[in-house]
Amino acid sequence: MLRFIAVLLLFVLAQPDASAQTIQSPNKVLTLTFALTRDGTPTYRLWRGDKVVIALSKMGLTLKDQPSLTEGFRFAGGEQIKRDERWEPVWGERSLIRNAHTELRIRLEQPEQKGRMMHIVFRLFDDGLGFRYEFPEQDNLRYFTVSDERTEFKLTGDHKAWWIPGDFDTNEYSYSESKLSEVNAEIGKNVREIYSKSVLGPNFVQTPLMMKSAEGLYINVFEAALVNYPAMAVEIDKASFTLRSVLAPDAVGNKAYMQTPCRTPWRTIIVSDKATEILASNIILNLNEPSVIEGASAWLKPMKYVGIWWEMHVGTATWNYADVNNVRLGETDWSSLKPNRKHGATTARTRTYIDFAAKHGFDGVLVEGWNVGWEDWFGNWKEEVFDFVTPYPDFNVVELQEYAADKGVKLIMHHETSASVTNYERRLDTAFQFMKQYGYDAVKTGYVGRIIPRGEQHDGQWMVNHYIRVLEKAARYRIMVNSHESVRPTGLHRTYPNWIAAEAARGNEFNAWSIGNPPAHETILPFTRLMGGPMDYTPGIFQIKMNAYDPKKKEQVHTTLAKQLALYVTMYSPLQMAADLPENYEKHFDAFQFIKDVAVDWEEKKVIEAEPGDYVTIARKAKGKDAWFIGAITDENPHRASVPLNFLDASKKYVATIYGDAKDAHWEMNPMAYTVAPWVVTSATILDLALAPGGGAAVHIRPATERELFMYGKY
Amino acid sequence: MLRFIAVLLLFVLAQPDASAQTIQSPNKVLTLTFALTRDGTPTYRLWRGDKVVIALSKMGLTLKDQPSLTEGFRFAGGEQIKRDERWEPVWGERSLIRNAHTELRIRLEQPEQKGRMMHIVFRLFDDGLGFRYEFPEQDNLRYFTVSDERTEFKLTGDHKAWWIPGDFDTNEYSYSESKLSEVNAEIGKNVREIYSKSVLGPNFVQTPLMMKSAEGLYINVFEAALVNYPAMAVEIDKASFTLRSVLAPDAVGNKAYMQTPCRTPWRTIIVSDKATEILASNIILNLNEPSVIEGASAWLKPMKYVGIWWEMHVGTATWNYADVNNVRLGETDWSSLKPNRKHGATTARTRTYIDFAAKHGFDGVLVEGWNVGWEDWFGNWKEEVFDFVTPYPDFNVVELQEYAADKGVKLIMHHETSASVTNYERRLDTAFQFMKQYGYDAVKTGYVGRIIPRGEQHDGQWMVNHYIRVLEKAARYRIMVNSHESVRPTGLHRTYPNWIAAEAARGNEFNAWSIGNPPAHETILPFTRLMGGPMDYTPGIFQIKMNAYDPKKKEQVHTTLAKQLALYVTMYSPLQMAADLPENYEKHFDAFQFIKDVAVDWEEKKVIEAEPGDYVTIARKAKGKDAWFIGAITDENPHRASVPLNFLDASKKYVATIYGDAKDAHWEMNPMAYTVAPWVVTSATILDLALAPGGGAAVHIRPATERELFMYGKY
Repeated sequence: MLRFIAVLLLFVLAQPDASAQTIQSPNKVLTLTFALTRDGTPTYRLWRGDKVVIALSKMGLTLKDQPSLTEGFRFAGGEQIKRDERWEPVWGERSLIRNAHTELRIRLEQPEQKGRMMHIVFRLFDDGLGFRYEFPEQDNLRYFTVSDERTEFKLTGDHKAWWIPGDFDTNEYSYSESKLSEVNAEIGKNVREIYSKSVLGPNFVQTPLMMKSAEGLYINVFEAALVNYPAMAVEIDKASFTLRSVLAPDAVGNKAYMQTPCRTPWRTIIVSDKATEILASNIILNLNEPSVIEGASAWLKPMKYVGIWWEMHVGTATWNYADVNNVRLGETDWSSLKPNRKHGATTARTRTYIDFAAKHGFDGVLVEGWNVGWEDWFGNWKEEVFDFVTPYPDFNVVELQEYAADKGVKLIMHHETSASVTNYERRLDTAFQFMKQYGYDAVKTGYVGRIIPRGEQHDGQWMVNHYIRVLEKAARYRIMVNSHESVRPTGLHRTYPNWIAAEAARGNEFNAWSIGNPPAHETILPFTRLMGGPMDYTPGIFQIKMNAYDPKKKEQVHTTLAKQLALYVTMYSPLQMAADLPENYEKHFDAFQFIKDVAVDWEEKKVIEAEPGDYVTIARKAKGKDAWFIGAITDENPHRASVPLNFLDASKKYVATIYGDAKDAHWEMNPMAYTVAPWVVTSATILDLALAPGGGAAVHIRPATERELFMYGKY
Repeated sequence: MLRFIAVLLLFVLAQPDASAQTIQSPNKVLTLTFALTRDGTPTYRLWRGDKVVIALSKMGLTLKDQPSLTEGFRFAGGEQIKRDERWEPVWGERSLIRNAHTELRIRLEQPEQKGRMMHIVFRLFDDGLGFRYEFPEQDNLRYFTVSDERTEFKLTGDHKAWWIPGDFDTNEYSYSESKLSEVNAEIGKNVREIYSKSVLGPNFVQTPLMMKSAEGLYINVFEAALVNYPAMAVEIDKASFTLRSVLAPDAVGNKAYMQTPCRTPWRTIIVSDKATEILASNIILNLNEPSVIEGASAWLKPMKYVGIWWEMHVGTATWNYADVNNVRLGETDWSSLKPNRKHGATTARTRTYIDFAAKHGFDGVLVEGWNVGWEDWFGNWKEEVFDFVTPYPDFNVVELQEYAADKGVKLIMHHETSASVTNYERRLDTAFQFMKQYGYDAVKTGYVGRIIPRGEQHDGQWMVNHYIRVLEKAARYRIMVNSHESVRPTGLHRTYPNWIAAEAARGNEFNAWSIGNPPAHETILPFTRLMGGPMDYTPGIFQIKMNAYDPKKKEQVHTTLAKQLALYVTMYSPLQMAADLPENYEKHFDAFQFIKDVAVDWEEKKVIEAEPGDYVTIARKAKGKDAWFIGAITDENPHRASVPLNFLDASKKYVATIYGDAKDAHWEMNPMAYTVAPWVVTSATILDLALAPGGGAAVHIRPATERELFMYGKY
């Protein structure tokens, strides 16, 4: 199924002692140099044109109970390979992805450590660099334990950074924007709305880390293909503007257990003088392995869904069935408990959602809180917390299976684990069998709380392997996975395309019950969290202010209604929720039409304009259709987005339906004022979208009918 | 099935402020007093007659992030109940067990902690005391984390103790005999033959702790019904001769996660002026809950077995198939590896064992090393180490299933986990399904190495729960479990009778490749490890000296051959192995006859004489048969065991076949010199058994036939 053109050029590097090696990216804009220092420490440097992106930076790892892999190396040879190929993802932002890079493999040996071998492999793309450590099978390095990775990213100045505190248990912080020297990640400790957090210290920040130099270079430091290894954060050395890799430890403080042959994830530096090119980069995906799931396209399907979920966040319903706080699986008789009358996941309410989904063409209905255990699921570090197969007394699985099937809608399973992962793993086969028995093809998993095995963290090697174990088992059952509170994705959905989405960042629900997400939030996420893969951000909230549910509430979504629509385009995901209540959509069916129309699988992506923390405008072409969707969002400031439609077929006329902020719209003062208007457009049109403070615009473009040309007249 | 007579007497203790309470054991030999100190600290004392066994000792627990449960208590009432009942175990040392005790329940409240409640329940038997903490369901104590248990056992002097170092990862130490003040458990750190150990410190020793006072009181401190709680060791305060409870911590240092209603295991003090009564005690079993496995007697069956096992310990065979050190499940192609030609678990060798078992009436054949993964299974803290379903290329599961079935022999499964417990739990259903598919009804499990989840220990709460999870799942598959390197049993085989045996102590195999087990070892185990339940000690080694396998070897079993026979009686287990090679048994079929004859399920038990570290002589009546077996063993000193046969039916004559040490036998100089001789005996006979240094005697008594009376004449 993959069409690809590969040009392979092999240079066996001639001089074994000439450890300094230089390669250039295909278009020669990037240059990478590798060299060993006098004491045999591996180093690298990266230039963009004549600008240094990464100054001389050390590489290596320290091991537990073994000499370290940081120095004493001798250059033992190397190879250069140039590749230019194209591949088709099962689903994605593009239907065809180009992978063009120059690869440099450096083979190193430690003569004083019985010739232990380590390879460093660089792949230099036009828009960035990936490199990783590889450990061939060898007699003197067989099993080893990584105590630290010593990868440096020595920057050239006090760049501006968009960061969240380093924390291997959560990514659900708001972003801060500051110079590297002004980072104070300790502020994470004061974030009350995140319960299970483990802030690493003042100078530790998470990756993807987005930066901008004074010279206007955009630099993104991240990793790709996180497999059998802990996630990487970075520590900022504020004196030298050097980032140093920091790995999530396990329960006893070790970082990774390795067996040769093996390799680390790729460390990535995406760099451009245009912010739009950062968003357009395919480096992370290209550094991941092709799909291991055979026949995936037969059963994997991007989808839109609604669900019993937002009502719990706004407080009109509960996950739990009874207001008690001491239940036990296998002992508590839930049918004997007094129902609290606010339980969301009832048969009747689910039927309402199924009806709504069927009526409006949604593929799925998520139901959270359907299964017993929610009475005291959180905060007790309780192992036997959920069984994933026992419904509450008011949720009729069989009846709903039949009802959903009749209506042509799929129910979406929910597996909150409460981070009791040993419990989940023990019950996983039973849980997946239950899903297949009752017609569920997709599961939303959740990892809220402190991990069991106790002492492990969400981002450690053991958990990284867990998420993959779930994906592999799910694939055997032909189940799609949408993981929440998991480690942030690193492009692994290329390899496991049933990993249909993840949360792993601060989602829309924080707006319902906390200080929320500042208006800039969604303009930063594409440069950070979304670099690794799709996010189930759950946009589409129409009832912006929570006082609609309770006059005492002061919380609100920090966007206009139109911006909620734009997020379906700016926030890529093959799984998109229409997160608000059916009742709220019924009040705004004109705006709701955009959510009904918007695609979830794409042929092409055009990043029109972008500046992290300020604005993002993206146009996407629906896969297999002559239809484009544009999303434009801004931060707390008003913004004018100018969108040349030169990507349209010049021979046709189109109708662009623009869902925009009304003139007096404002995320805080007047967030629900929007306009919907159709316009006839051509490839010569330049749309001028006026975004309110905290606002946005969503546009649906499709070929105009004769009737529309008549109705909407001249443009 | 249970016949019981219960006499219940209820005293509601009258004065709520009169916290001092006294009870006596049914025969009044033991007296227990409970009292609160002035600051509301619970305390207890125990007397035997007028001798103090336990002086004033404090009780309580400290909690994490909550006020402790050690003081500030108010007496809120109590009850006294007397019970006298009898029950029948599914299998055991006796067919009917009496449970007679006085129970005292003390209800305590902490007025200054919102009335938090804790109960202390004492059960006073004639031969000892059990007590535990109970936590009723209550609003102000719902979930809590135990950071320490503060139970004291204040002894009255510098007792002699038989101890092994406190260590929550292994029980496989040799015993030391010393005064409490002279305990130095640090010596455990020098024990090279135990790889995964975690010695707690100089004053920490394991339970069961056997002691003897200068006045001649035998005192055993242990626990019963270890469920959902970590195992208990004790720290010795050498100044006050006080033992303090020490619980196995989890990966983050917590001890136990509790949810009310809940309770701790029983803390037990078995006491008598006769060592034989310590061995005769049923306290541990009586403090456990009745069987939860319905219909267990239909499929649970005590058994004798042989197996491919000892040959690996003596070095003539290997568990692994190939001599490589870097394999991976799912990747390594074992059939492409070069066989080392020493692999033990071959189809051919297994057939030999099946033939041998069938010929000699053994029920089962254990085969270790049948499944892939043994090449580098140990010492790498490797998670994906065994899959429990893939045989080596030279082990034909289907062929052997048919062959064993034809011969009427059961194959016994082996699941070495390498302590990678998360891996085992994920694969457990598949592994048990594989067993049932191929006709296996019993499994020997193994937990060699460092536990995964990393940071957990063999004796911690998580692992304690794991062993029970395995038992529960095994019961659903009708599988019997013989666990090695698990936590030591605490009588739980009453509740889970499919826990047919355990190791959890230093077994016979140490004699094959280490400094071995000193001759006193087997005279101490009944007072320590065996207090909690049956041990798979794997006796029956006839080839005592290892130089038979390799002239360079100096290792040997530290007993005579006759003592190996006696162990089948002194070392109770419903699962007994004839551990030596068929070739060695073939050289001594006269002695082997005892192993063939000895029962594994019993009606009655008579402890004839015993002194820990010196000698043990026990007589047992086979269940449902007029047959008795006697085992007598001694330490490194010679011993004469005088055994009155007054337990025999006075109206009958019997033949006693005595398997004894030859006159010049000696565990070191001449260990394999034995005699076998039949004698006609009656209930008036007093057998005089002469045991060699490190020797023993085994006796099989059954009704004499006419022919035998004629042949063996007068006695």
